[in-house]
Amino acid sequence: MKVTVLGCGRWGTFHAWYANFIGHDVMLWGRKGSKHLQELKEQHKNEYLELPEAVSLTDDLKRAVEHADTIVISISSQQLRSFGAQLKALGNLAGKRFVLCMKGLEIGTGKRLSEVFHEAVGDEVPVAVWVGPGHVQDFIRKVPNCMVIASDDMDLTKELVDSFSSSLIRFYYGEDLLGTEIGAAAKNVVGLAAGMLDGFGYGSLKGALMARGTRELSRLIEKMGGDKMTVYGLSHLGDYEATLFSPHSNNRRFGEDLIIGKPFAKLAEGVYTVEALMELSEQYQVELPICATVYEIVHNHKDPKEQLTQLFLRQTKSELA
Amino acid sequence: MKVTVLGCGRWGTFHAWYANFIGHDVMLWGRKGSKHLQELKEQHKNEYLELPEAVSLTDDLKRAVEHADTIVISISSQQLRSFGAQLKALGNLAGKRFVLCMKGLEIGTGKRLSEVFHEAVGDEVPVAVWVGPGHVQDFIRKVPNCMVIASDDMDLTKELVDSFSSSLIRFYYGEDLLGTEIGAAAKNVVGLAAGMLDGFGYGSLKGALMARGTRELSRLIEKMGGDKMTVYGLSHLGDYEATLFSPHSNNRRFGEDLIIGKPFAKLAEGVYTVEALMELSEQYQVELPICATVYEIVHNHKDPKEQLTQLFLRQTKSELA
Repeated sequence: MKVTVLGCGRWGTFHAWYANFIGHDVMLWGRKGSKHLQELKEQHKNEYLELPEAVSLTDDLKRAVEHADTIVISISSQQLRSFGAQLKALGNLAGKRFVLCMKGLEIGTGKRLSEVFHEAVGDEVPVAVWVGPGHVQDFIRKVPNCMVIASDDMDLTKELVDSFSSSLIRFYYGEDLLGTEIGAAAKNVVGLAAGMLDGFGYGSLKGALMARGTRELSRLIEKMGGDKMTVYGLSHLGDYEATLFSPHSNNRRFGEDLIIGKPFAKLAEGVYTVEALMELSEQYQVELPICATVYEIVHNHKDPKEQLTQLFLRQTKSELA
Repeated sequence: MKVTVLGCGRWGTFHAWYANFIGHDVMLWGRKGSKHLQELKEQHKNEYLELPEAVSLTDDLKRAVEHADTIVISISSQQLRSFGAQLKALGNLAGKRFVLCMKGLEIGTGKRLSEVFHEAVGDEVPVAVWVGPGHVQDFIRKVPNCMVIASDDMDLTKELVDSFSSSLIRFYYGEDLLGTEIGAAAKNVVGLAAGMLDGFGYGSLKGALMARGTRELSRLIEKMGGDKMTVYGLSHLGDYEATLFSPHSNNRRFGEDLIIGKPFAKLAEGVYTVEALMELSEQYQVELPICATVYEIVHNHKDPKEQLTQLFLRQTKSELA
């Protein structure tokens, strides 16, 4: 099968590597002037992996989209709307299906990425999401993992699962696109909270964080019309090892650095996502105590110790609430 | 309030320390000849904590039970039935209520500890369970955590929560005793599986393990008449930090040592629990693929790599299945 991957950052390049690894004919696109693309063109590798010569490289978006009917997108979440407009401007997307390998919610609207994509490209263009756990570094050294593909069309989901399954990635079908996308995005916020606990030397509270973080998001997803169980699947809970426990997790580290007062080079994705989640909390009238605490600390610069203590001392209540 | 704690191992002694810390009048019992009790009598401390002089120590079970109406039990799970018979033989338990601070299932019957207790002591004796995350070492240095108390009587549950809440332990009410007990016991089996993954250098699969381990137990609990959400609360998922990630977790370490071929001093609790879970799997006709894999490796000495690979390569399916 022919596969195009749009975006040549760490995950985009991995997806190109993986599609080639399982036997597909792959073209990888990066924007004009991309340093990542330049590096790949010159050395056919980046800091994570070596890319076989068989993977074509291009900065021509039209050519990349023409190459295949199955198109993976892995770019920065907040750029998806404008990127979608570029794709639409190319015209002739009939027969193409898109797979979003990215996690996030749009700031300002709280919208899911598949919604943003449809609004930008057109409702008729099929789109799925591919999310779940796994570190690029591990996949490259052939450590397997489980992931999930979800869309609003089970036939599309199954076709994609069949096209991308291998002994390296075992896929599950996701049956709740909304819950899958909210959960995948929100895990970065729980990662920020985990880092804050680590920063205070309260790492043993990460167990309670896992139980209570999932619960508030489960309630939000249910209120939005999704399935309350989805957050406990691979897209969210399944990603907690990488997000809450790995020393390399960008979001966990951001939270930790914020507490211990270490300067950080760039904002973590969860910083944007928590803003979008506060919009959803308001819109759907669902209390999100942990997300709100992260928001107060990160965006309103409230005292972290005081905020986390308040969270802990809230009134005793039922586990299911 | 007067509180008696029966059992002076690591957790029993902690419960005596904690009950004293929050202002109760505490007596701690250990069996005659107990080395732990001897150590506490001589030094008023053990390897984890110092016990204030105000905590009375005794090896007289009758005296200990007479001391208080609220009696915490923390002994080895498989000994609960015979210990319960000893309690019943004392007679005069009217007005007493018991709190089981222990995790396990009875081998041979698959029964929950509250069931075993009722069968041994009498159906009319009120019993609750107190489980959830937290390391003794952390509590002692005043790191707070969240835990759960559950029973079949919400008035009892609330009274106990009120009696034991503090700034160090935030309690939630458990509303599903069955699910709470199965989950608390079963987390040790998931801990064994986590250790096996660590042993193979497949630690990044612990995310998928968390998502899939909870799912199979959720299905079992639902089939047994419990709530499918309970396993995602503090009693099970909330204990994953301590059980799946801590280097000190006894069960995790047992699983890891088994894979790397390091001899281990004693069996971990999950080794017993997985046997009881196989009985429940059969009895309720619920497939438990992860537990069954642990069982095959630990009890039938099947090849771990082959077993774990088979688990991974099972047919692709829906996340909710």
